Amino acid sequence: MTGGEVLGSNQLDETHDPSRRSWIASANVSGADFPIQNLPLGVFRQGGRLGEPRIGVAVGDFILDLRGIAARIEEEIEGASQFLAAPSLIPLMNQEPRVWSAVRKLIFRFLEAGSPSRHVCEPHLVPMRAAEMLMPVRPGGFIDFFASIQHATNAGRLFRPASPLLPNYKYVPIGYNGRTSTIRCSGAEIFRPNGQRKPAGQDQPDFGPSSQLDFEMELGIFLSGHTQIGQPVPIAGAWSHIFGFCLLNDWSARDIQAWEYQPLGPFLGKTFATSISPWIITADALRPFRVPAFARAAGDPTPLPYLFNAADQDAGSVDVKIEVWFRSESMSADSRPSRRIGAASTRELYWTPAQLIAHQTSNGCNIEAGDLYGSGTVSGETEHSLGSFLEITFAGKKPVAICDGVTRTFLEDGDEVTLKGRCRRSGFVSIGFGNCSGVIVPGPSM
Amino acid sequence: MTGGEVLGSNQLDETHDPSRRSWIASANVSGADFPIQNLPLGVFRQGGRLGEPRIGVAVGDFILDLRGIAARIEEEIEGASQFLAAPSLIPLMNQEPRVWSAVRKLIFRFLEAGSPSRHVCEPHLVPMRAAEMLMPVRPGGFIDFFASIQHATNAGRLFRPASPLLPNYKYVPIGYNGRTSTIRCSGAEIFRPNGQRKPAGQDQPDFGPSSQLDFEMELGIFLSGHTQIGQPVPIAGAWSHIFGFCLLNDWSARDIQAWEYQPLGPFLGKTFATSISPWIITADALRPFRVPAFARAAGDPTPLPYLFNAADQDAGSVDVKIEVWFRSESMSADSRPSRRIGAASTRELYWTPAQLIAHQTSNGCNIEAGDLYGSGTVSGETEHSLGSFLEITFAGKKPVAICDGVTRTFLEDGDEVTLKGRCRRSGFVSIGFGNCSGVIVPGPSM
Repeated sequence: MTGGEVLGSNQLDETHDPSRRSWIASANVSGADFPIQNLPLGVFRQGGRLGEPRIGVAVGDFILDLRGIAARIEEEIEGASQFLAAPSLIPLMNQEPRVWSAVRKLIFRFLEAGSPSRHVCEPHLVPMRAAEMLMPVRPGGFIDFFASIQHATNAGRLFRPASPLLPNYKYVPIGYNGRTSTIRCSGAEIFRPNGQRKPAGQDQPDFGPSSQLDFEMELGIFLSGHTQIGQPVPIAGAWSHIFGFCLLNDWSARDIQAWEYQPLGPFLGKTFATSISPWIITADALRPFRVPAFARAAGDPTPLPYLFNAADQDAGSVDVKIEVWFRSESMSADSRPSRRIGAASTRELYWTPAQLIAHQTSNGCNIEAGDLYGSGTVSGETEHSLGSFLEITFAGKKPVAICDGVTRTFLEDGDEVTLKGRCRRSGFVSIGFGNCSGVIVPGPSM
Repeated sequence: MTGGEVLGSNQLDETHDPSRRSWIASANVSGADFPIQNLPLGVFRQGGRLGEPRIGVAVGDFILDLRGIAARIEEEIEGASQFLAAPSLIPLMNQEPRVWSAVRKLIFRFLEAGSPSRHVCEPHLVPMRAAEMLMPVRPGGFIDFFASIQHATNAGRLFRPASPLLPNYKYVPIGYNGRTSTIRCSGAEIFRPNGQRKPAGQDQPDFGPSSQLDFEMELGIFLSGHTQIGQPVPIAGAWSHIFGFCLLNDWSARDIQAWEYQPLGPFLGKTFATSISPWIITADALRPFRVPAFARAAGDPTPLPYLFNAADQDAGSVDVKIEVWFRSESMSADSRPSRRIGAASTRELYWTPAQLIAHQTSNGCNIEAGDLYGSGTVSGETEHSLGSFLEITFAGKKPVAICDGVTRTFLEDGDEVTLKGRCRRSGFVSIGFGNCSGVIVPGPSM
């Protein structure tokens, strides 16, 4: 697949046709996260710890167990009985993008209203409430970027009011390596980390529970297709390495981070936990929601040639509206609903996914199937489009009122943070990402 | 195993007895890297790409193929036929430290002069020259620390002459997450990375091959023993998580690093390559070479309680003398030998391995078998004890004469860098680490 083909947003097919419906009623409900135009991939199990991990596709309120129908898919797609029966998505990710598309189209055909293959699938539908979602893959590498210029500006302003953006920002897709062992699926409890902090006015640091625990609302990108060390991925071919997308909450302890991060960057302020939504929204499903790259301001530099591609500028960004919802323990106890505290679109990111890939591999670093990127906190320009408490509360200086009797500067024990994501475009069925949730629990006693 | 037991350096046994010899003559040569007092573990293969990876122990000029004798070891150590027949060290690492010690003692007994088990081993000895060493494990996580105060001072002085050490240095074991996919075994070629650089006096950055390619002389530490997320490892128990040590060259592109590293730390200036020596020198083998923690200067703060343990202060550091040897392409062509360009001991590191573990897990981050730490560049106080060209040449300002007609500021294509490591102590047989080598080759054309 060449870059041009991949980058074009005109490659829509029957799986994007808004008139198509499923024989599964819950998939046809207006506003459902998982209509048949979505068909995200994940790994689930039933029966608790002893249940075996299986690959599934989300459709309405059900999971279609792909292992159960792998032999049927093998009749049309060679190798499917192997790569769809695996306990992880890695073997599928290691196929060519045309294989991912072929699997998608076949499942679409099976699930479409009137499909003669309905009887093949029905025995392999698992109600979502009866399944536990697992990590879709264990990423070999996790890189967190800093792609929202608005977030970079907001965060920088707290430290350098006169010149919030550093000189490299508009040239370099800034990123750093994260910790993979603590990436957890939505629903996992988040332990409040202990760490060293040195509050202003204190001579010496001390050690204790973070008092500035924060969330970061991000888009996750799962990569695929091994490359060789020493062989950069040109930007024109980068989309063929994107398997799909998820939501990602890069939990952050701002007090630990502030004291530790010079000169080598964030470490323990981040490594205690990262949460992701369990369903990978495929690059194919996102095709209708591709949009032009962020419009750089007059006077901004043109990206260097290795980061510039006309097709990427035309349709290389994605328009995912991400929202962050908050509920405190007391709100839960009173059965009060979560409150939305921020919303922004990934179309406002300064760098496209292809630019991130071209940059990350530009030094010869390889890609492995399952590698995960975080976009960095997605923030927009208004006070309601901020993706972290750091920004919403000006680093804790200005508490925010969530609802009656509940204000916050940072997260307290029992607080639940939920990210939701959705793509909408006139003339298409909107698709959702499912939830990425976590509840803060106290860390171990010291 | 409790921390006190583990930390004591008095737990020497017959495997440390300097009077013992092997029936393998090359293991008894004075100054050999691999006498029977060492017995490091690695993974090797024969027969090229199709050869299967096998666990081996280095002894003299040979590798003892542990898979070959796993059934015999099983007679005395339950489970050995499983964990020693694996293609990776992870299953062995997942055993308790007492199992590691039992395997070591049994192999020592087999290889000792006069052993009745000689005939068991002889068919499973592979000459080192006939084997290819592979990565001993694929680390799930790689963290590079900054534990040499001398290196931190030298590097800081280049940017902040008046106050080279940042205020957090003496409190926080500074570290950052590295990239695992580009960690390679000694011998792998190192591609010169391309990247963005912005030389002083230039208005805009450009993109091209790094012109400030450097090495970093480090100690590697392989961890073991899974822990749970949210459960920090107390410093007293940290040594039970140390499987062993290697040499590590954290190749660095200083020009790329300088332009990209604010505000989130090193990224593409590091991720193109890391080299390690293939043999893991076990924590048991290093026992005689444990030394007191670095003596802090008067006025330096006492480590915070979670980083302080009396036994660790007494014997928590290790004394590994690491040397860096250099040979240019022209020196190789003329059959001129490598020249030593630096040497320093890990006893000069400001933080002990146990402090690094206690710190890394203090926020609740877990450990997984195979996790790798780099110590950070090991530098001493003299001009001959510097572990990077950055320090040796004052960031390229003062070229160093290597030998007749060869001077360097940074690495050129064809240059070979080799790290060597050795432990010596009066009354004990010295042990070596083997080599960690890499040759610089041009990167892909742009």
